[in-house]
Amino acid sequence: MAQISLSAVFAQEDLDEQSSLDIPTDESSTPLLRLSRKAIEDGYDSVCIPLTNEAWRTRWKEMCLTVDGKQSPEVERLAEDWRASEGPFLKTEMNITRLDEAVATIGMVSEWLELDSPDEGVRYDSEIALKQELAYASYLNMPAVVLPPPRNRLHVADYARAVNACLKSTTAYLHISVRIPIYDPRSASTDTLSQQTPPENVPLSAHARAPDGDLSSTWEMWDVIRSVCGYSPRLSLALDLSLPLPVSSGVLSRWSTEPCYQIFLPATSFISNAKGYPVLTKLTQNFLRNTFKYNPTILLARTRSNVHQIGNHLAYAQYVRHLERTSPEIIASQQPGTLENYAKGYWDYLQAPLQPLMDNLGSGTYETFERDPVKYERYEEAIFQALSDRGNLGRVVICLVGAGRGGIVTRCLQALDRSKCDGIVYAVEKNPNAFVTLQEHREKEWGSRVQLLYGDMRKIQVPEQADILVSELLGSFGDNEASPECLDGAMRFLKPDGISIPSSYTAYLAPISSPKLHNELLLNTSKAGPETPYVVMLQAVNMLSGDGGGLRGNCGSRIQECWTFSHPRRDAVLNEQGLPITNAHNTRSARLNFHIPNAGVLHGLAGYFEAVLYRDVGLSIHPEGMDHISPGMLSWFPLFFPFRDPLYLPSNSELQVSIWRVTGKSKVWYEWYAESYLPVLSAPPPFRPVTPTPGKVGAFLQVAGTPASDFLSPTTPGIYSPLASAIPSPISMVHESDPKNTEGGGFRMGAGGEGGLGGGNVIKIGQTALHNPDGRGSWTGL
Amino acid sequence: MAQISLSAVFAQEDLDEQSSLDIPTDESSTPLLRLSRKAIEDGYDSVCIPLTNEAWRTRWKEMCLTVDGKQSPEVERLAEDWRASEGPFLKTEMNITRLDEAVATIGMVSEWLELDSPDEGVRYDSEIALKQELAYASYLNMPAVVLPPPRNRLHVADYARAVNACLKSTTAYLHISVRIPIYDPRSASTDTLSQQTPPENVPLSAHARAPDGDLSSTWEMWDVIRSVCGYSPRLSLALDLSLPLPVSSGVLSRWSTEPCYQIFLPATSFISNAKGYPVLTKLTQNFLRNTFKYNPTILLARTRSNVHQIGNHLAYAQYVRHLERTSPEIIASQQPGTLENYAKGYWDYLQAPLQPLMDNLGSGTYETFERDPVKYERYEEAIFQALSDRGNLGRVVICLVGAGRGGIVTRCLQALDRSKCDGIVYAVEKNPNAFVTLQEHREKEWGSRVQLLYGDMRKIQVPEQADILVSELLGSFGDNEASPECLDGAMRFLKPDGISIPSSYTAYLAPISSPKLHNELLLNTSKAGPETPYVVMLQAVNMLSGDGGGLRGNCGSRIQECWTFSHPRRDAVLNEQGLPITNAHNTRSARLNFHIPNAGVLHGLAGYFEAVLYRDVGLSIHPEGMDHISPGMLSWFPLFFPFRDPLYLPSNSELQVSIWRVTGKSKVWYEWYAESYLPVLSAPPPFRPVTPTPGKVGAFLQVAGTPASDFLSPTTPGIYSPLASAIPSPISMVHESDPKNTEGGGFRMGAGGEGGLGGGNVIKIGQTALHNPDGRGSWTGL
Repeated sequence: MAQISLSAVFAQEDLDEQSSLDIPTDESSTPLLRLSRKAIEDGYDSVCIPLTNEAWRTRWKEMCLTVDGKQSPEVERLAEDWRASEGPFLKTEMNITRLDEAVATIGMVSEWLELDSPDEGVRYDSEIALKQELAYASYLNMPAVVLPPPRNRLHVADYARAVNACLKSTTAYLHISVRIPIYDPRSASTDTLSQQTPPENVPLSAHARAPDGDLSSTWEMWDVIRSVCGYSPRLSLALDLSLPLPVSSGVLSRWSTEPCYQIFLPATSFISNAKGYPVLTKLTQNFLRNTFKYNPTILLARTRSNVHQIGNHLAYAQYVRHLERTSPEIIASQQPGTLENYAKGYWDYLQAPLQPLMDNLGSGTYETFERDPVKYERYEEAIFQALSDRGNLGRVVICLVGAGRGGIVTRCLQALDRSKCDGIVYAVEKNPNAFVTLQEHREKEWGSRVQLLYGDMRKIQVPEQADILVSELLGSFGDNEASPECLDGAMRFLKPDGISIPSSYTAYLAPISSPKLHNELLLNTSKAGPETPYVVMLQAVNMLSGDGGGLRGNCGSRIQECWTFSHPRRDAVLNEQGLPITNAHNTRSARLNFHIPNAGVLHGLAGYFEAVLYRDVGLSIHPEGMDHISPGMLSWFPLFFPFRDPLYLPSNSELQVSIWRVTGKSKVWYEWYAESYLPVLSAPPPFRPVTPTPGKVGAFLQVAGTPASDFLSPTTPGIYSPLASAIPSPISMVHESDPKNTEGGGFRMGAGGEGGLGGGNVIKIGQTALHNPDGRGSWTGL
Repeated sequence: MAQISLSAVFAQEDLDEQSSLDIPTDESSTPLLRLSRKAIEDGYDSVCIPLTNEAWRTRWKEMCLTVDGKQSPEVERLAEDWRASEGPFLKTEMNITRLDEAVATIGMVSEWLELDSPDEGVRYDSEIALKQELAYASYLNMPAVVLPPPRNRLHVADYARAVNACLKSTTAYLHISVRIPIYDPRSASTDTLSQQTPPENVPLSAHARAPDGDLSSTWEMWDVIRSVCGYSPRLSLALDLSLPLPVSSGVLSRWSTEPCYQIFLPATSFISNAKGYPVLTKLTQNFLRNTFKYNPTILLARTRSNVHQIGNHLAYAQYVRHLERTSPEIIASQQPGTLENYAKGYWDYLQAPLQPLMDNLGSGTYETFERDPVKYERYEEAIFQALSDRGNLGRVVICLVGAGRGGIVTRCLQALDRSKCDGIVYAVEKNPNAFVTLQEHREKEWGSRVQLLYGDMRKIQVPEQADILVSELLGSFGDNEASPECLDGAMRFLKPDGISIPSSYTAYLAPISSPKLHNELLLNTSKAGPETPYVVMLQAVNMLSGDGGGLRGNCGSRIQECWTFSHPRRDAVLNEQGLPITNAHNTRSARLNFHIPNAGVLHGLAGYFEAVLYRDVGLSIHPEGMDHISPGMLSWFPLFFPFRDPLYLPSNSELQVSIWRVTGKSKVWYEWYAESYLPVLSAPPPFRPVTPTPGKVGAFLQVAGTPASDFLSPTTPGIYSPLASAIPSPISMVHESDPKNTEGGGFRMGAGGEGGLGGGNVIKIGQTALHNPDGRGSWTGL
């Protein structure tokens, strides 16, 4: 049942103390085995000890460090022999020597190694020593080791390169963690007693530093290390919670999505409650509980240092177990029927989106859908309200397109019953297999009020036009299962004043960081790759965007609207069969501008939808809308649009996302792209182009003096400078006010002649590739 | 002989005028054919005309543009039919209709298409029209078309996505250019007559805008387009020189490495010389001549507009041909024996570096080397000076390790003769094939003053120790052909007070942009990929770095030193055979900080070397040193370290490059990595960590109050916060002053406790992957 694992951290002194006791050491009793056994008895799952002791440190220092740049030839020779053989250790230098001692032991690599020393020689010899320790840990079958933290931002790339080399040279079994404190204590103000929260927005004049600028430095080091190590799945984080947690939620949420295998939690990080027992601050409790779902090992240290007046050394472990037991998420996930319980198996699992138009779904898939009571209840309510609004105008015709196994048919009948309307339900379905189930339902339950029609809604004919057209063709992003195209085909069935349920659906996007999902894409080559979106129950994900408009006040909210589809669509041009001639009216595009308050790495975009079924009855997976629009609904996980290469985004940057819904002759797909910007302070100095010498001024002026309206206009034939937007062109003028302009909720950076992006207060700093599925993962059948 | 091609640009009016003439049109005479024939007679190679005329524009506008958001159903229906079929054009809408008219014709795509309109509908219909024009151009077998320029920075991603879609839908034969002006005229000051050059450095208070900030905007658009199009080799640039050129060389050099297939040069860009003839400014002349080597087509427009008083319409083409004929580079490249002539065939060609230690070179390779007189002359001079300094102390022993086919043996003998010394030359060679040639030379030329020794210099024995050890084992990066390792093995042959020629060599790096080389790596999958360095005669390359220290004054020069190897090395630890025990002493690393004055895209690093042979006699391929150290030397091209993914660098950013020379048991290789930073203005607001409630202060203070020396020191066992560099550790202290520290000429961003990178005036904005050859392209045999 336990999700997390507890480890007792022992220091060298603890081992030395145990060794100095007058207990005979034999096959079954060594100082370390005795410590381990005691820890297991105390409720721990493992112990965590330094791999090496002071003897090795002394020998290494003697061999590898010079005094005043000098070294005796004998010692140099010893050092060279050691470098050549990368070993061996002496037995007396190691704290652990036997296989049985290693079974439940996490090794701490020598704390004094300096992989990021400013001295190249020290770095080199530290790397050899690290390799040697890791090889030894592999030899003893240890499951995991923890590396000392990087200490020098200037040389963190050296540290990272060494770790990458070690990952390649050690066995795949050994897991390597890097210990990192949650922030650099030097960046914390000495005013630690202030209750003030840090300012969330910095005025432009103070510019482009994060409110948590300095709180980023250790995360930045971790980011360099795991990037240089290519997001290796064998590399993880031992997050050090020795320091008081910062208030900024952006800083904490960034850490909570990193691969946190261990959490270092010394007794000194506990405060005393009113009775004097050790407890954690609310902030730390919440943070810890958030990480529990990733099953970390909590490394409890200094528990015997008598830091707290009440409660013995066991109080810390007991408190952490208590936190785990009372974690709402863990409790919920163990309760059948909850979203947490249902979703657990899907956490961060990349699924190809369904393509019900192209593929016929299996009965099991329908079964999964039908397990969600909320969606069906919302549909019934919407139909009921539509019927009620209509009043009793006689027999009502409902047409359900895409009936599946009939879940919504039943709800249509119930709505008819509730509203006491006389009516008929036409149920259209193109899946021949599901059509058998529909026949069975009709025979056994529905009777003659339901008429079944087999065929593609874009091709078949119905006996009469409907008052209400009901459909459930929605995907995680609203339109991503070709609902607009299918409904275009079905609109023939609807009376001119008829109602469509849903009446509209809107797609939303937010930029996210997720080392885990990025890694899934890197590792899982059987997936379609980073060029198609995936359906994912997002868990280890950090939303990078923030509300508040950003430093320049021109960014949208943290989750932004892309576009909306409304039904019935009255303005499409139809052919003789009542079908649209092209799919042009279903193309969409959006350009969104996000404020990025805290530095992070962009791995993709999270896509959500919100649908209006009828009036105020809706469906939503928008993180901020779902809980009041359709609470508890399980049917849709978000859509994940990955970026092939991670894009680093500094604090207070802006991310401009472009997304397109593109249509070809028989396909619909998305393409997406992003650029990053940083607001800056001042306007650039004026530019002066080269000028002719005085003797040549005449001819030059002839050029420079050409009237701008002639020189620049794009509408003049044979023009010679094409930056037409300097002068509004007649075409643009007409269309700027065109209501067809469906562009999303993004911002406008001084369109037209006002200088645009290059114009003074923002600087471009990066971009992604264009992501284009090239036919893979597209929807066919248009 | 001609490298460039000239094209006469005709406007619609020219065609209309020709059509209105009373000349009968038949099989062999159409208005366009007549214009073409006249242009060929006038010395042009082709003509450039608009593909479509006003009739198409009128029809497109009627179909696709709405009036007050409304459109008649009939017209909507026409538009939908057009969208569905993507055509056809009417004959009367096209300026070109026959295959023979298309032979030497560049098509200008309809200037009025708005692929970057703010209106989504206009963008959509412009994209269909573009596809239709491109399909038509493909049908007529036209070699190239020119697209109208992007006009709207806000929607350039839309423009780019449309072009990418068209590249995929058209035949591979058609080449597509995007017309782009060299800068946005709106960014130019009206003070066009000022002779002042723009300021090269902006003070920190004015911050992070490029001196050429606004001059970047059109290049930035081009960069978005080609990036979104994945560096397609079918996409290129039609650079528009309608506007006066900017003075900033950074702006110009950025353009000169882009794939510039056409240069648009209207008569209005010419000035008048003293006699009134049209000429170009010196700056434009230089810029044009620089681009000639890529064989562009110069599009000459408005030549009949009587812009200049003297010279008829032919004067412009004649002047451009004159520029070509008098281009020093073109003249030199046609002259055998010059560097330009020799290098021409190697321009931007990626070669795997030689591995003479692993492979035995062929005679042809030696032959190529021996064609370079400068290298041999420098070697003879160095040996002569060393002999002269030595004075006449009796018989001198010279040992040449790696004799090859003997080119330097001959120079040793000549130096002995010139200095009138009595001596012997031992020539060591491990290539069994070259050893045959050596025997022939000895027999026919050298006689008994030369003694040949066959074998690997790291293993064989020589009859006596040498006064002078001569070697030529240098690679483009100095040590990249394992010269340090080979000479370690040969130092046994040298008397304790002997001289090594070369006495040292130093490696240099600079960050470069090269869309061409990046493309070569993308396309040429037979190459080893982006994880190994290549030898390249760099041509279409722009050095991104600048001198001057950057905004914060902490950057090095534009080309920076990485490390140096000196011989003989006195301090290596040797075994009984006189060989080093490990290769640890030949590892190196450097961290370099470059100032990036103008925005650009980082594609790789250029590597150079400079060697001291003896005293002031040297060899250099360092761009700033080569012309006075070893002018005219042909033997080495630079080394190119590619980055897999391009990294966008804004103006005034800093690029921190890390490079390592790593050694394994039997290999040596390089790894490289870079991070980008942007200087910012102010310090961040102070951070306040969460604090306990008043009732819990006691326990918290116990933590916060722990003395820092105990709490933070990495050298204290059982420590709980690891950012040790806050307090200088004893280990670091010893080594900061260690002369073994061979770190390169980079800057130190406040090492240790001063806050480092996170500390207030620089913000990280991006990074590359670690490039690690994983054994490929490494050198073996150590």
